[in-house]
Amino acid sequence: MAFHLLQRDRKGGLQLADALSNAMTEIGHCQQCRTFTEEEICHICSNPKRKENGQLCVVESPADIAAVEATGQFSGRYFVLMGHLSPLDGIGPSDIGLDVLDYRLRQGDIGEVILATNPTVEGEATAHYIAELCHEHQVSASRIAHGVPVGGELELVDGTTLSHSLMGRQKI
Amino acid sequence: MAFHLLQRDRKGGLQLADALSNAMTEIGHCQQCRTFTEEEICHICSNPKRKENGQLCVVESPADIAAVEATGQFSGRYFVLMGHLSPLDGIGPSDIGLDVLDYRLRQGDIGEVILATNPTVEGEATAHYIAELCHEHQVSASRIAHGVPVGGELELVDGTTLSHSLMGRQKI
Ligand SMILES: [Zn+2]
Ligand SMILES: [Zn+2]
Repeated sequence: MAFHLLQRDRKGGLQLADALSNAMTEIGHCQQCRTFTEEEICHICSNPKRKENGQLCVVESPADIAAVEATGQFSGRYFVLMGHLSPLDGIGPSDIGLDVLDYRLRQGDIGEVILATNPTVEGEATAHYIAELCHEHQVSASRIAHGVPVGGELELVDGTTLSHSLMGRQKI
Repeated sequence: MAFHLLQRDRKGGLQLADALSNAMTEIGHCQQCRTFTEEEICHICSNPKRKENGQLCVVESPADIAAVEATGQFSGRYFVLMGHLSPLDGIGPSDIGLDVLDYRLRQGDIGEVILATNPTVEGEATAHYIAELCHEHQVSASRIAHGVPVGGELELVDGTTLSHSLMGRQKI
């Protein structure tokens, strides 16, 4: 990209540098959900309808917010960990903002916490840690379902996922 | 493979032809579950412990039995549709053995039917059709969970699967 700009669009290159520099200096974290934003409070957290809903979806990264928003199935607010618990790397609860989450749970306006951390070992451990935190505050906690991806074939799914899919079966 | 056998192992080739011919003439379908077997009743259906369990897992193909068996999470019996409902292709209930299943549900030894058809549109429709059949016989029916595959990343999962994963969330 840099070569293209040097050869054909030096003016555009300068504009890009400017925008990038602005982003780097002006984009901070939302005080409520920790996602990237130029404001103090991001546009999702400041939406009163989102607050009314009472659900809080906990994700690992701002990209996960985009993924959940794209489903159109969720109309509550988010909390972004910006990572997951990783004791071996020295990443503890306060490094992923659980002190902020603790404070939010104490406000009493959250009815359910949906734990949408990644379906990895670390994501799972982080989800369970946060579930404990929710229980201390008498807030209901739920974990997104593991299972076979829609449109796939059973025999192509790995054994661990298929196990979860069987254990997580629901009445129809 | 044929060239290899012609050049180096004509005797082996003849043995293979024999085994294949035997398989083609002697392998039939289990009278109870419809999977491939050389016996009248396959080894899973004829296992009394499998019967005691009372669960019946409905799958589309014998390969799916192998996948579920590999998880080690299931100790009931199976029913193999050898396909799925597909009205446009003229594949109706009796083509996928639902008359046999209907008969089995009437015997009263099945406590729960686990619908493990593929997570495709056709598999889903077939699962719902069979769930209706179960309800007519007062047999409980459940559907395996759709969701994010274990070990994956949320942002890489398609929107439909993520929707199912959110809707299918469970309390922790
Ligand atoms: Zn926010
Ligand atoms: Zn059988």
